[in-house]
Amino acid sequence: MKKKFLYVELADNISEKIKAAVFKPGDKLPSIRSLSLENGISINTAKRIYLELESLSLVHAKAQSGYYVSPQNPHKLPLPESSRPLAIAEHIEPNEIIDKVYSSMGRKDLTLFSFGVPAGNLLPIAKLKKEIVLATRTLGEGGTTYESIAGNSKLRRMIAARSLGWGGNLNENDLITTHGCMHAIALCLMALTKPGYTIGLESPCYPGILQLALSLGLKVLEISTHPETGIDLEALKNVIPKIDICLLVPNYNTPIGYCMPDANKKEVVSLLSTHHIPLIEDDTYGDLHFGEVRPKCCKSFDLDGNVLWCSSISKTLAPGYRVGWISPGKYKEQILKLKLVHTLSSSTIIHEAVGNFLMSGRYDQHLRKLRKTLKENYHNYVQIIANDFPEGTKVSRPQGGLTLWIEFPKQMDTIKLYNYAMKNSISIAPGRMFSLQHQYQHCMRLCFALSWDKEISLHLKHLGKLAKTLL
Amino acid sequence: MKKKFLYVELADNISEKIKAAVFKPGDKLPSIRSLSLENGISINTAKRIYLELESLSLVHAKAQSGYYVSPQNPHKLPLPESSRPLAIAEHIEPNEIIDKVYSSMGRKDLTLFSFGVPAGNLLPIAKLKKEIVLATRTLGEGGTTYESIAGNSKLRRMIAARSLGWGGNLNENDLITTHGCMHAIALCLMALTKPGYTIGLESPCYPGILQLALSLGLKVLEISTHPETGIDLEALKNVIPKIDICLLVPNYNTPIGYCMPDANKKEVVSLLSTHHIPLIEDDTYGDLHFGEVRPKCCKSFDLDGNVLWCSSISKTLAPGYRVGWISPGKYKEQILKLKLVHTLSSSTIIHEAVGNFLMSGRYDQHLRKLRKTLKENYHNYVQIIANDFPEGTKVSRPQGGLTLWIEFPKQMDTIKLYNYAMKNSISIAPGRMFSLQHQYQHCMRLCFALSWDKEISLHLKHLGKLAKTLL
Repeated sequence: MKKKFLYVELADNISEKIKAAVFKPGDKLPSIRSLSLENGISINTAKRIYLELESLSLVHAKAQSGYYVSPQNPHKLPLPESSRPLAIAEHIEPNEIIDKVYSSMGRKDLTLFSFGVPAGNLLPIAKLKKEIVLATRTLGEGGTTYESIAGNSKLRRMIAARSLGWGGNLNENDLITTHGCMHAIALCLMALTKPGYTIGLESPCYPGILQLALSLGLKVLEISTHPETGIDLEALKNVIPKIDICLLVPNYNTPIGYCMPDANKKEVVSLLSTHHIPLIEDDTYGDLHFGEVRPKCCKSFDLDGNVLWCSSISKTLAPGYRVGWISPGKYKEQILKLKLVHTLSSSTIIHEAVGNFLMSGRYDQHLRKLRKTLKENYHNYVQIIANDFPEGTKVSRPQGGLTLWIEFPKQMDTIKLYNYAMKNSISIAPGRMFSLQHQYQHCMRLCFALSWDKEISLHLKHLGKLAKTLL
Repeated sequence: MKKKFLYVELADNISEKIKAAVFKPGDKLPSIRSLSLENGISINTAKRIYLELESLSLVHAKAQSGYYVSPQNPHKLPLPESSRPLAIAEHIEPNEIIDKVYSSMGRKDLTLFSFGVPAGNLLPIAKLKKEIVLATRTLGEGGTTYESIAGNSKLRRMIAARSLGWGGNLNENDLITTHGCMHAIALCLMALTKPGYTIGLESPCYPGILQLALSLGLKVLEISTHPETGIDLEALKNVIPKIDICLLVPNYNTPIGYCMPDANKKEVVSLLSTHHIPLIEDDTYGDLHFGEVRPKCCKSFDLDGNVLWCSSISKTLAPGYRVGWISPGKYKEQILKLKLVHTLSSSTIIHEAVGNFLMSGRYDQHLRKLRKTLKENYHNYVQIIANDFPEGTKVSRPQGGLTLWIEFPKQMDTIKLYNYAMKNSISIAPGRMFSLQHQYQHCMRLCFALSWDKEISLHLKHLGKLAKTLL
C-alpha cells in the first residue's frame, strides 16, 4: 500500500477527532505554529493541513484568530440513496416540467435556485470586457474573418497547458473549440452514434443531456449512481452489452456534485476501451473543486484515445460567451469534419479574448476566489437545510461544482413544491427533470452559485417551510 | 399582361440598342437632361433608367461627363450550359479536392479566388468594433449571461423589419438566431430529416451543403439548374416523388449567381407545399443584388409556413462573428428545441453588437457601397476573362453575390488547373467540388469579392494563360 503523506495523515487524524466530537463545533483548533512545533513539520505543511480540512468543510478560519471547527458539520445530514433506475431504455419525457422551469431563465424577479449557473457578480466581468475590447483591436481585420476550423490557437494552447494540472498532457492539436460544452457533446454524439444506438448515462442526469440524446434518436439507459463516488461500476459492467456509447460527468456532476475516485475513473476507462465503447467525458465542473487539488479526469487514464473530453468556461467565466472545447482522442477527424459542416468556426473575437484571459494568469486567481465563495455558499445552504427543512431530508455532499441534490421523504412531490415555491417567487429544479423514468419525484436540485445574502437565506428558509407543509 | 413602367420600357429600349450594337462600347449616351426632355419624364426617372442599365452592366458613369456604353459587354461571353446531373442519389464524394482547397483558408501568401467571402477591407470594421465595445458596456453583467433561446431580440426585430423589403412580413417571434447560416441549415435538416431521407438540391451546389447532407446520412438528388433562372421546374416536378426535403439558394446562389424569377419562386413554394415537402431557403446572398431592387425570396410566397428561410451576415458584414438566423415557419417548435439542446444560445455580446449595428441604419449604407464594389469587380473579371481566357470559355452572369462560374471547353481538367495555379500562388475552386457526381471537371468557381488591384488583375490574367496551356 502506498504510504500517505505526513500532512494527509495529520489531517485525517484531526478529521476523525472532529467526527468523533472530540473537537466540537465552535472549538478553536491548535494554532498553525503549535501544530508545526508539536509535529516537527514546517509552517507551510501545517497550513496545508488546515486548508485540506477547510476543503472538506470541517473547519473554517477566522481572521486574526485561527482555525475553528465548523459550527454546522454538513456530514450530520444523511446522504441521498444510491440511484436505482430500471435497467431499461424506455422513455417518459418530463417535457412539461422542463419547459416550465426553463421558461424562467433570466427572470430578475425570482430567486432562481433552479439553474446551474454562477451569479454575474461572481465573475471577473471587468477583466473579460477589457479582453474583448483588446481582441477587437489586435485581431487582423477586427476579428471579422473566419478562424481556423480547429479553433483559436491561443485558447487551445492554454487549455492544453492547464491539462498538465490533471494529468491530461494534451497539446494544442489535441483540441477543437466549440460553442460551449453542449455543442461539444452534440458533435461527439453526432459523430459516433446513429438513431437507435443506446447511450449509458449516470442517474440522475442533467436534463440537457437527456434531451440531446433523445433528439438524436438514441435510447437512454440510466445507470445506478452513488451520491459520493458516481456511477456504480458493477451496474455499468452489467449493461456493457447493451450500450453503444457512454457519457459521464465524473467531476462534480450536476445535480449531485460527487467526484468519482481515481481508481473508478481508471477502471471505467479501461472497461469501455476493452469493449470498444467510446466514452464522452463532460468535465465542465472540474475546475470548481472545493479541495486544494484539481481532480483528475477519465481522460487522465486514456491510453488509446477512446475518451472524448469536453468542457467549457460556461460555469466558471461567462455562460453567454459560448466557449467550449473537445479533446476527441482518436475520433479527431470525424469531429473536425462535423464541426466544419455544422457551424464552420467559432466566434473569432470572443474565443481570442478568452484565450488571452487564460494567458494572463488571471483565470487561476479568479477560480480560487470563485471556489472559496461556492464552498462557503454550500455550507450556508447546508446549515439552513439542517435547521429549516423537513425531518428526514437527505442532501448530497458535493465536493465541488454549483449544485446539490436534496432527497425528501418519499411522499414529497417536488413538482407540487415547485408550483408552491413559484407563487413565492422561488424557482427550484424538481427531481423528475433529471430522468426519463418515473423517479426522483421526491428530490430536487438547488444551485448554490447565487450571490449569498440575507434575501437568499430567507428564501431558502422559506422553501424549507413550504416543503414542510407538503408532508 | 401587366403594363411595364415607363422607365422599364425606356431602359429595355436602350438595352436592345446596345445589344444590337446601335450604341457601341465606348459611345456616349444621351444626357439625363435630354433623356428627360425627349421622353417627357422627370430627371429622377431618367436617372433611374441609367441606374437600371448600370445594374445590368450595360453602361457606366464617368464623373462630370455622363453615361457611356460599357467597353466590354459581358453578355458577349456565352453562358454555361444548364446543368444535367443524373437523376440518381449515388454519391462519389470529392473529399480530396475539398480538403486541399479548404486547407488554404486564411493564407495571406496566396490569391484566393477559391473562397466565397468578402475581403476584409470591404467590411465596416471600425464601426463593428465600436458596436462590440459598446455592447460589453451596456449589456447587463457585461454580456456574460445566457441570452434567450430564440436569440437577441433587437437583432430579430431588425431582421424582421428588413423582411418588409422583400415581402417577408416577418415579426420578431418568427425568427431564431444561430451561429451562422450553416448552423441554421444544420438545425433545419436535423429537425426535419432522418438518415436515409433524400434531399433535392440545385446543381452545382455549395460543397458545405453537400457535406452537411451526407454527414446527416441523407441521400442527395442533384437537380438540373439553369445558369440565369435557377432550378429547372420540370426537373423538380419529376423528382418530387423521390425527395423528402428540398434546399434552394434562389438568390445569387454560389457558385453561379443566378436569381430565380419571382414566378418560379412562387411555383416552387406552391409545388412543395402541395406535396408536403419542407423547403429550406438559403438567402445568404440576397442583400448582394447588383440591381436597384432587393429580390424577393421563396419565403415571400410562403402561405402555410412550409418555407424555412435561413440567412446570415457572413457574406455582408463579418464571417467570423457567426451570426445567422432562421425563420422556420410552422417548424418553429422543433427548431427551437434543437437549438436549445445542441448549443443552448448564441454569443450574447456579438449578437447584441450586430443588432445595434442594424439599428443604426449603417447596414444599408454599407451594403450600397459593397454592392457597387462587387459589381465593378465582376465587370473587371469579365473583361479579363473575355480577353485572356481560352477560346470557348463560358461564364455565368451573376446578378448579385460574390462568385461566378466558368465553364471551359470539355477537355479542361480544373483539378489540374488548380495544381498549376497553386504553384503560381493562385487558388481556385475546381468544379468537381460542387457535385457528388462526376461532373463539372471542366468548370470552376471564382470569387470576385477580393479587393481589386493590379496584382489581382495580373493573377487573373495569369490564370487565363495557365488555362490555355492545358487545352
